[in-house]
Amino acid sequence: MTDPIIAALRVDVDGINLEILQALSKRAEVVKKIGARQTELGITHFDPKRESEMLEKLEKANSGAFPSSTIKQLFKEIFKASLDLEEREDKPKLKYSRKTHAEDSIVTISRGAVSVQFGGGAKTMIAGPCSIESLEQTMQAAEIVKKHGITMFRGGAYKPRTSPYGFQGLGVPGLEIGAKAAKEHDLLFVAEVMDTRDVAVCAEYADMLQVGTRNAQNFALLREVGRSGKPVLLKRGFSSTIEEWLLTAEYILSEGNNQIVLCERGIRTFEKATRNTLDISAVAVAKLETHLPIIVDVTHAAGRRDILIPLAKAALAVGADGVHVEVHPDPATALSDNQQQLDFAGFDTFMAAIRPML
Amino acid sequence: MTDPIIAALRVDVDGINLEILQALSKRAEVVKKIGARQTELGITHFDPKRESEMLEKLEKANSGAFPSSTIKQLFKEIFKASLDLEEREDKPKLKYSRKTHAEDSIVTISRGAVSVQFGGGAKTMIAGPCSIESLEQTMQAAEIVKKHGITMFRGGAYKPRTSPYGFQGLGVPGLEIGAKAAKEHDLLFVAEVMDTRDVAVCAEYADMLQVGTRNAQNFALLREVGRSGKPVLLKRGFSSTIEEWLLTAEYILSEGNNQIVLCERGIRTFEKATRNTLDISAVAVAKLETHLPIIVDVTHAAGRRDILIPLAKAALAVGADGVHVEVHPDPATALSDNQQQLDFAGFDTFMAAIRPML
Amino acid sequence: MTDPIIAALRVDVDGINLEILQALSKRAEVVKKIGARQTELGITHFDPKRESEMLEKLEKANSGAFPSSTIKQLFKEIFKASLDLEEREDKPKLKYSRKTHAEDSIVTISRGAVSVQFGGGAKTMIAGPCSIESLEQTMQAAEIVKKHGITMFRGGAYKPRTSPYGFQGLGVPGLEIGAKAAKEHDLLFVAEVMDTRDVAVCAEYADMLQVGTRNAQNFALLREVGRSGKPVLLKRGFSSTIEEWLLTAEYILSEGNNQIVLCERGIRTFEKATRNTLDISAVAVAKLETHLPIIVDVTHAAGRRDILIPLAKAALAVGADGVHVEVHPDPATALSDNQQQLDFAGFDTFMAAIRPML
Amino acid sequence: MTDPIIAALRVDVDGINLEILQALSKRAEVVKKIGARQTELGITHFDPKRESEMLEKLEKANSGAFPSSTIKQLFKEIFKASLDLEEREDKPKLKYSRKTHAEDSIVTISRGAVSVQFGGGAKTMIAGPCSIESLEQTMQAAEIVKKHGITMFRGGAYKPRTSPYGFQGLGVPGLEIGAKAAKEHDLLFVAEVMDTRDVAVCAEYADMLQVGTRNAQNFALLREVGRSGKPVLLKRGFSSTIEEWLLTAEYILSEGNNQIVLCERGIRTFEKATRNTLDISAVAVAKLETHLPIIVDVTHAAGRRDILIPLAKAALAVGADGVHVEVHPDPATALSDNQQQLDFAGFDTFMAAIRPML
Repeated sequence: MTDPIIAALRVDVDGINLEILQALSKRAEVVKKIGARQTELGITHFDPKRESEMLEKLEKANSGAFPSSTIKQLFKEIFKASLDLEEREDKPKLKYSRKTHAEDSIVTISRGAVSVQFGGGAKTMIAGPCSIESLEQTMQAAEIVKKHGITMFRGGAYKPRTSPYGFQGLGVPGLEIGAKAAKEHDLLFVAEVMDTRDVAVCAEYADMLQVGTRNAQNFALLREVGRSGKPVLLKRGFSSTIEEWLLTAEYILSEGNNQIVLCERGIRTFEKATRNTLDISAVAVAKLETHLPIIVDVTHAAGRRDILIPLAKAALAVGADGVHVEVHPDPATALSDNQQQLDFAGFDTFMAAIRPML
Repeated sequence: MTDPIIAALRVDVDGINLEILQALSKRAEVVKKIGARQTELGITHFDPKRESEMLEKLEKANSGAFPSSTIKQLFKEIFKASLDLEEREDKPKLKYSRKTHAEDSIVTISRGAVSVQFGGGAKTMIAGPCSIESLEQTMQAAEIVKKHGITMFRGGAYKPRTSPYGFQGLGVPGLEIGAKAAKEHDLLFVAEVMDTRDVAVCAEYADMLQVGTRNAQNFALLREVGRSGKPVLLKRGFSSTIEEWLLTAEYILSEGNNQIVLCERGIRTFEKATRNTLDISAVAVAKLETHLPIIVDVTHAAGRRDILIPLAKAALAVGADGVHVEVHPDPATALSDNQQQLDFAGFDTFMAAIRPML
Repeated sequence: MTDPIIAALRVDVDGINLEILQALSKRAEVVKKIGARQTELGITHFDPKRESEMLEKLEKANSGAFPSSTIKQLFKEIFKASLDLEEREDKPKLKYSRKTHAEDSIVTISRGAVSVQFGGGAKTMIAGPCSIESLEQTMQAAEIVKKHGITMFRGGAYKPRTSPYGFQGLGVPGLEIGAKAAKEHDLLFVAEVMDTRDVAVCAEYADMLQVGTRNAQNFALLREVGRSGKPVLLKRGFSSTIEEWLLTAEYILSEGNNQIVLCERGIRTFEKATRNTLDISAVAVAKLETHLPIIVDVTHAAGRRDILIPLAKAALAVGADGVHVEVHPDPATALSDNQQQLDFAGFDTFMAAIRPML
Repeated sequence: MTDPIIAALRVDVDGINLEILQALSKRAEVVKKIGARQTELGITHFDPKRESEMLEKLEKANSGAFPSSTIKQLFKEIFKASLDLEEREDKPKLKYSRKTHAEDSIVTISRGAVSVQFGGGAKTMIAGPCSIESLEQTMQAAEIVKKHGITMFRGGAYKPRTSPYGFQGLGVPGLEIGAKAAKEHDLLFVAEVMDTRDVAVCAEYADMLQVGTRNAQNFALLREVGRSGKPVLLKRGFSSTIEEWLLTAEYILSEGNNQIVLCERGIRTFEKATRNTLDISAVAVAKLETHLPIIVDVTHAAGRRDILIPLAKAALAVGADGVHVEVHPDPATALSDNQQQLDFAGFDTFMAAIRPML
């Protein structure tokens, strides 16, 4: 069916393909040796000057039908592949990657006898008020969280607020209240930290540190929570790509801390019917890329109470390891996020609806 | 606990609130009469000139503590509420809205004894190749679709392509092939239409007409498919807000055609790990707003094969009435979308995975 | 300074680079012959089946240090470069591209003695009301447009409206009014067309046809305005990439119509302080890519009157060939876009401000 | 021309409008008293509980034609206006706002006899390499910057990098090099700071502190640079709205530091032809909103060298107070941003092109 002239030419192409393949393999061997030597000498593998020299030589040598721009692009691809090879051989791979660690990681958080697990098949809830506002409000919230058999209690003592005049959280007294409420109800306590200088005190009171969406690329903070050794709830930046998000985890992992739970919480798009756009595909994609547990914060994704149940179901169905939701004794009077937190009746309904999927 | 001075002032405020309420109600009565008279005379309710005159008068009369800009804004809100009232009273409400039609609509599509239902609790699949390329390819795809008990078969005869030099579809011969494959396998056939002049011929061969994402705001086409009386699969524009999407349905409904199935297929955002960002919340929000059935096109949302199963599960969990997916006998050689269509083995796996949720 | 071991290995790499280069050039020669033969036989150059066979063979043959996934990716790049080569040799290049036509195109539109030029150093204004609402309003607008020495007068007779119940334009009577106002003031008239079936009648009354942002990927319409032979004002889709936008011009060009003026009018982003986000860089990038004239529609980009002057200045400074702006005798009572059209005093101020840059 | 029945009803409406106006003004008076008392007592003005009680009472009292949801919405608007009134009366207004400070602010930065001014009609350049890599590279860059009569020299000693394995900057030695190069060339030195703990040391070496796009909502850092008293170059977050951006300035202002230069540097959108989308309208809008100087970083907006000249022209034409651009002795070997920095020849061309607009 194929034209005989084309068929004959294609045999030639097949031969040349193999020639190119052999040359590439030979090149790979030499490049591996260079990489090993560089590692020995402590030199970085990437050398843009050398690359630009090679490209110049090739450009001069090129008299074939491919324009030099094409030749340069093809060789840039070859350089990239060679660099990958050097790095794969000689350097630790990305720690978040399934290529480094194929099986799901399990993050276990505990304080005394109280313990909770993320990943490894568990479907784990995090619930609590947006902000810690008073002992009374926090104790009430802890009580209903406990009532539903949830172990991980959230509550913010440091609040990232768009305006400097908004309620900024109670600070250390807030941490004290949160820790007390958690302790009295046999809960674990997760609290957001926003300043490298607060990591130590947060780590003292909280069982897990949260890095919030606005600090997703606060690399100093990521390193510091990494060094703290505490489990970390790592939210995706509201405009971070999936790859950027995973690399923020790498910052923490590179400090030797692998107790990380990733949290998708919606991205910023043109659509304003929801506060953010829950990127449910990001959970599916990230599950392919990383072994770390991933949960979904439906409250901030939605920014409205009336779709939390379907979003939580979607999150669990897509393969998330848990759901993060905010609940407050009286959302109308909450000092932050009062349009989106569930009241206790709403929380009961919510938990009843998603219980079969937990 | 409240300060007595503030408490006393608040009693005053409560009294004034009631005064305002009474004046607003009185105003509403008069406005309703104006609206009825306008309807009688066939005049539009909205009269920006009259509004600007009223605002001018109020601005002149204002000597209170509120700045005139505030007074004007408050009255604009009152005008808007009044206009809503007039329109609610005298005009057909938006036909897509649950306020007009509270219960879920059921869209039933049939040809002879073959019939399929969207909405009303059914979870309905649409499957088939992206493009109709040949009789053989289409018959094979129809066979596997039938094998899995799916009744709605898709296949494009007119293809919207970014480049004018891409494969543009077979046109009428493609419609003939699609209709033949559907008939021989007792399937129903849905095909995209892109030109008002092609609606009639498409309606002849297809059991359902699709309006694609690039034509989501091609209002002439929306009206024409509305007039055709054929069931319509209405994709969301890849940059349409939820409200804009529902209003595209209104175009079709306003022509007396209520056989509409909405289809979320992902929106365009900064994230490029997926071809589009599946806006799973849009399904939840749209379900609150409209009685029309809503399905999710996982193929175009993802643009990659490896996350179709979790996305379909999420779609069904969030409350979608069905899933749209592309399948091709040999995706690698497909004339369009060859990175994202499932092959037959992949389709078997896909259907096995989501079967329990159908 | 370089380590001698590395230096020696690099000599080897340089040699292998040249081997690869020679093999690539040899391959290019054979591939050119295949391409020529395919053209002779009228076969498409892209053959995904053949490509997947080659990749399979290479995968089997690969025993080197590069993983097969890398080899496959490198060869895909080679295939792509080869395909480009075939297409460059045998097929017309993209007509919009500066590679096809290096110098700026000049689009001259005329009716009798009235004439206007876009491109080639001219800075050309388009002005007029959003919608044609009445003869009086249109005549007044034409008069002020004329007063400022502008020749291209805009006015919509078919209006794309989000809601089917919004003012949809006067249709043919609107075209008559626009043409009359243009004729009596020695202006040229540009009007939007939305339906392939209306192209002929629009072409009868208007001197230039506009394809609006919502129809930017209405490919049937693009072909039809291409066939009409009329000059086209081609707006960028509010969510089209620059490349997609240029390819919509290619649809028109491929029908033999090269009288195209491109128009950047803002894209949809998360920012809502402006109706759209004016993508000023798109003008700079498109100027590098295409020889077609490009103007900027500041009215729809801004969606507010108070920043039209700085935006027009930015547009002219970045290198746009003109500016599109809406002016209405009484914007407050306009039937569409009443928040953003300039009144006559505003238009006088606007023109005075940008006059030095024209 | 107006129907007499409608005309008569409109007289009634006018009367009721005045009644509402009077009640609103009366309410405003009482609310002002409450606000003054709250200020006296140190209580926050916003009391969501009180608001929800008022809404409840109004809902119960409502028997008019407006649905309760409408009444509640109208009163929420009234509450908001009242709160604005209280805050306007009793609280410092937003310091960034032109309502607080109508005229343009001038930010003067100096060290000894070296001085530079932003705002007040000056068009001021900031230039230098992305990262400080070595003394030699930095001295060379400082020399060319000086040669073009630019006083503000940039160079990063702390680099925010997506990957933890990327070059992270030289830290304090980098600051030393930057300060030395600046001093020897009579330049002022601006350097990015990323960690609250580094603010003091940065302030020691640099004449101006930069807060980068990834730390735009690192509120702890904003407060700390505010407290440092040093001039601040405040980049817009790549996904911050204009309002959020201005509020980040408010964080710094609220610490008593008004030496702020805002910097638009592009936002993240779907378009990938440029690294970010330069939001030129944001400069125009922000100029209306704030008295602070605003410059444009064309390098990060574009992410490519070939459109820097038109972008800089657009920035100056739209009203920006200056331009930020990166220049490096050998961009191909730069340790960061090597695709987008200008080399010295490119910088000469760039400066020659924009010089007439400075």
